[in-house]
Amino acid sequence: MASFTPPAADAMRAKLLLAARDEFAAVGLTGARIERIAAASSSNKAQIFHYFGSKEGLFDALITQTVTETLTEVPIDTDDLPAYAGRLFDSYARRPWVPRLATWYRLERAADAPLEAIVSSNAEAVAAVEHAQRAGVLPRSYRPAVLLGLVVHLAGFWDATTPEFDTLVTAVVPARRRQIVVDAVGSLLRG
Amino acid sequence: MASFTPPAADAMRAKLLLAARDEFAAVGLTGARIERIAAASSSNKAQIFHYFGSKEGLFDALITQTVTETLTEVPIDTDDLPAYAGRLFDSYARRPWVPRLATWYRLERAADAPLEAIVSSNAEAVAAVEHAQRAGVLPRSYRPAVLLGLVVHLAGFWDATTPEFDTLVTAVVPARRRQIVVDAVGSLLRG
Repeated sequence: MASFTPPAADAMRAKLLLAARDEFAAVGLTGARIERIAAASSSNKAQIFHYFGSKEGLFDALITQTVTETLTEVPIDTDDLPAYAGRLFDSYARRPWVPRLATWYRLERAADAPLEAIVSSNAEAVAAVEHAQRAGVLPRSYRPAVLLGLVVHLAGFWDATTPEFDTLVTAVVPARRRQIVVDAVGSLLRG
Repeated sequence: MASFTPPAADAMRAKLLLAARDEFAAVGLTGARIERIAAASSSNKAQIFHYFGSKEGLFDALITQTVTETLTEVPIDTDDLPAYAGRLFDSYARRPWVPRLATWYRLERAADAPLEAIVSSNAEAVAAVEHAQRAGVLPRSYRPAVLLGLVVHLAGFWDATTPEFDTLVTAVVPARRRQIVVDAVGSLLRG
């Protein structure tokens, strides 16, 4: 049930989520220590539990916020999926905790209840892709969810490499990395 | 320095690695408990430390073994990278712990010394791709390491999805999932 949240509580919530972001991105859900998040936010465990209920509750709230931010910053553009993938790449470069949080989420929370923010953002994006396929703007070689999934997967390519691989591609500058993502999605659409 | 290892020690080492595989794949390096691995292998902590030195040493030995197994099971075939990606998909389907372990490794061990097994397997595969590009068998639109990286990344597509995404693609049967990987790599090569 929605209720009025006074600004001071909003600010405290935001401060806790910011500290949680760094801790969870670095070490994941299991490795995260509420004590460290409390210290980093000049807060305490009781306050964190008051706002989020549990470490898992804090993690889920952070994921929800991150998904919402990404949707706002990089809305899907079915008229130009390569460009959309390029903007996702930019967004991950600016906010490197995003792909890390998404990966921890996948590894550590897969057995839990689905997060409404992810379900609804997926549904919206899939509907947009389906609409564009029906309109003939996008190829129908993959079903909408699969095409969307492949595009997002390719956008995250540079965030999914091992350190051993990274040493082989140090010469590939960020602008070229971005272009590789854009080109790969272009190829996917040409089939 | 190589030394003679009696078969009994080999068998114990294999038993410990098997128990370690399930534990690390499920909860990662930080989350893993040596006590659980000891219990699952009818062993004890002292024995594990005797063989592997530390929890990190056990994890690295497991990653090394997994990389070696995957190379043996799915050698790179630069004459047909889409088919190679399909076989990687098959291998991950048979051994679902492999992509999970690789992901934990990337998240939890990136700051540590590179693993020789990964470095040398990468070097070998990149050299093969480079050779094929020079011979005109593979396109030169991406440098060898990048092309290899993209192919492996696409092969792991179905192991990198969120549970929320999975509910959207329950109708996509394994054979179709495999074909999607093969097709996506084919598109990448056609450019």
